[in-house]
Amino acid sequence: MLHNFYNSDDTIAAIATAEGISAIGVIRISGKDAFAICNKIYKNKDLTQLQSHTIHYGFITEGDEVIDEVMMSIFQSPRSFTTEDSIEISAHGSPYILSRILQLLVNNGARLAQPGEFTMRAFMHGRLDLAQAEAVGDLIAAQNKVQAEVAIKQIRGGLSEDIKLLREQLLNFASLIELELDFGEEDVEFADRSQLNQLIEQILQHIDPIIQSFKYGNAIKNGIPVAIIGRPNAGKSSLLNLLLNEDRAIVSDIAGTTRDTIEEVLNIEGLPFRFIDTAGIRTTQDAIETIGIEKALKKIEEAQVVIYIFDMSNTSVEEINSDLEMIKAKNNQIHLMVLANKTDLINEAVKTNLLNTLNHIGYTDTLSIQANKAGENELVFLKSALHDSIKKGIVSEGQTILTNLRHYIALSEAREALQIVVEDLNGRLTSDMLALDIKRALNALGEVTGEISSQEILINIFGKFCIGK
Amino acid sequence: MLHNFYNSDDTIAAIATAEGISAIGVIRISGKDAFAICNKIYKNKDLTQLQSHTIHYGFITEGDEVIDEVMMSIFQSPRSFTTEDSIEISAHGSPYILSRILQLLVNNGARLAQPGEFTMRAFMHGRLDLAQAEAVGDLIAAQNKVQAEVAIKQIRGGLSEDIKLLREQLLNFASLIELELDFGEEDVEFADRSQLNQLIEQILQHIDPIIQSFKYGNAIKNGIPVAIIGRPNAGKSSLLNLLLNEDRAIVSDIAGTTRDTIEEVLNIEGLPFRFIDTAGIRTTQDAIETIGIEKALKKIEEAQVVIYIFDMSNTSVEEINSDLEMIKAKNNQIHLMVLANKTDLINEAVKTNLLNTLNHIGYTDTLSIQANKAGENELVFLKSALHDSIKKGIVSEGQTILTNLRHYIALSEAREALQIVVEDLNGRLTSDMLALDIKRALNALGEVTGEISSQEILINIFGKFCIGK
Repeated sequence: MLHNFYNSDDTIAAIATAEGISAIGVIRISGKDAFAICNKIYKNKDLTQLQSHTIHYGFITEGDEVIDEVMMSIFQSPRSFTTEDSIEISAHGSPYILSRILQLLVNNGARLAQPGEFTMRAFMHGRLDLAQAEAVGDLIAAQNKVQAEVAIKQIRGGLSEDIKLLREQLLNFASLIELELDFGEEDVEFADRSQLNQLIEQILQHIDPIIQSFKYGNAIKNGIPVAIIGRPNAGKSSLLNLLLNEDRAIVSDIAGTTRDTIEEVLNIEGLPFRFIDTAGIRTTQDAIETIGIEKALKKIEEAQVVIYIFDMSNTSVEEINSDLEMIKAKNNQIHLMVLANKTDLINEAVKTNLLNTLNHIGYTDTLSIQANKAGENELVFLKSALHDSIKKGIVSEGQTILTNLRHYIALSEAREALQIVVEDLNGRLTSDMLALDIKRALNALGEVTGEISSQEILINIFGKFCIGK
Repeated sequence: MLHNFYNSDDTIAAIATAEGISAIGVIRISGKDAFAICNKIYKNKDLTQLQSHTIHYGFITEGDEVIDEVMMSIFQSPRSFTTEDSIEISAHGSPYILSRILQLLVNNGARLAQPGEFTMRAFMHGRLDLAQAEAVGDLIAAQNKVQAEVAIKQIRGGLSEDIKLLREQLLNFASLIELELDFGEEDVEFADRSQLNQLIEQILQHIDPIIQSFKYGNAIKNGIPVAIIGRPNAGKSSLLNLLLNEDRAIVSDIAGTTRDTIEEVLNIEGLPFRFIDTAGIRTTQDAIETIGIEKALKKIEEAQVVIYIFDMSNTSVEEINSDLEMIKAKNNQIHLMVLANKTDLINEAVKTNLLNTLNHIGYTDTLSIQANKAGENELVFLKSALHDSIKKGIVSEGQTILTNLRHYIALSEAREALQIVVEDLNGRLTSDMLALDIKRALNALGEVTGEISSQEILINIFGKFCIGK
């Protein structure tokens, strides 16, 4: 398979649309023999004589038998997705017919494409860099506005342009330092050390927010886990129902939910939040109940946000504080939101007093709500607080968002290497040590865009794509 | 909905590919505003200024936000499927992105298409007749070679041409007879009665095999039920396994199989056979076993073919004959195949003698087999016997095959009306009676191709299509 995967001489074919009975199904074929192969099964016109980006009606035939009535879309090299000669056959959306046509293409010399092989060819031939190619996969899997936005921005070169520019500047310095090495013992300095220092400072300033955006980017991609924690009858389930009922259409179950906790995904302003309802926490002697509570607390460790909800009419500041301390002891990285429920059961003065006290002891992200009958406004507040809790302080408007773990690791490594270069400069290390550390940073940056890549990385990346892409 | 469904002034849009994450998804838009609407969300070029059947790269945008990178395929009226101005937007195969783009089209003036509405417009504008349009639905649902062949033949006008030609000839006579009516009392005969008689004879000769082909066509569409009947240990299950093992890839379970009977579908030379394994039949006093046997015999009533299998080493001619008589008593319409099993356990002379006897008493479709270790040849024989049993005597090579119940009913009604016309002619009925009966035949024929159709029929037909077709 390895050999095949990299054999760009082959002409590859695959069904590119989703499987199922539908109006239209598309088969894609790409490679140097694409036109010749299609000419054997499409007799209406000589496909090699047609203009690129034109569409032609006709029939796919096997001998005398007509298989389907189709439209052939012609893409001549290099004006195609793969940059190779390509044809898209738009056939009737019958899985049977589509597999028949694909089989015919294979019988006439095409090879079944591996997952992601079309995109890999686009990358190999320089039409996309690796970060852009990976974004194609992300875009296809996008399930909400923010995911799609970030992916399309990356396809259009957002991240790549940032990285490429930085890498080029660094490359200039690397060349100068390599030059110094050529002169060996002569102790010349072509590369201005203070300029280099300045450049690295610039680069670090540029990639730091990108690296930090991964926390947000990862949340975008995988959903932000929000644990709803509270004592029994604090209103946890009412809160969850309230959040979900508001927009039932975009609620979905998450596979693998246990009987003990309920998980539901809700998109808020385009961000996917994964809400985890838990058992009520309280001090108990009951062994079984203790296990349930332990499980609830375990969820705190996995969460990125905890909504602590309490019954305002029935909970003392001491109890609240004790619960909150316990939550923070479990996970001090989380964003903690405090939600005072059942505000209708107490008078305004008591309420204000309690909220002030909480604010005073440091819980500033505090909202009050009536979970069983929340008004439009309360919900809007809650949702925007949730949204802000994730976005605030992590990303600024229009910034490049990192969603890919591979990019995060590579950029983190680049940063580490650059910080060592700074140390090298301060320690006035020799040119050869400097060159080595700069090279490490260059490689790490190059890995993001694929200027530096290994077969293993490529197979890993493109193997996750769907077939036909 | 009715109103919308017929409002051809609307520009309609729908996702035309199957739902699911995939490389490519296609959105179709058709109607007089198709270009204007797309111009609002695709800013790279003015779509009204482009040539038909050309493909254009660019971005779908909503305000400043880029939704996707797409290819736009331009089809100018009348050179499109619907004959209207149409565009196919080939986007990334993300269900989220596709629904986003569809929503944008709707926001800019398109209407969501009803199921089958694109094909209905093709029919309304004369690009397809009704029989062709119905075949589009059949082709999309095709699951094997024969189904697809029959559908594509019908799309290309096979059935329609037959019917139209006959209808036109009959229409000529009808006009002449209408003319006679205009002359009222004058007792003139413009229409030559003997020529009319001859024409009707021709038409009947032409449509009779088409009507008869429905038995085959229906089998193609729904699978041919084959009951495997025999005494306990005759080798029923071995036979089924043998048939199925040969080509496990195209075996599938049928929903709703009971614990008592096993149903499996196997395509033989492109025809779907639905095999039904049954409990062994024998005379028994056991009440429960009797129920099982009754169920097995019940399957005979539903079958189109019965394979009666018997253990040649262990069953007398009298027993076989008694079983076969019982089967025929249950259903004398079925095709009955007799299969002598375990032929390895007896010598050649006894075998030949037994088979001759069976042949002699009228069971000519007799094969012998060793179901537990059948060779390649025996299976091939069995399968081609099965295939022939369905095709033989019903259809001839290249003949039009009727698969649609609606067509069958219409053609049967046409035949009935034509037979009455023949009686009218023989009884020398008056022109007005004759005209009425010819008209009935004309209407029935016209229903097939949709020259005669009602809203109700159209909604019924196109409502079964998928959205986007």
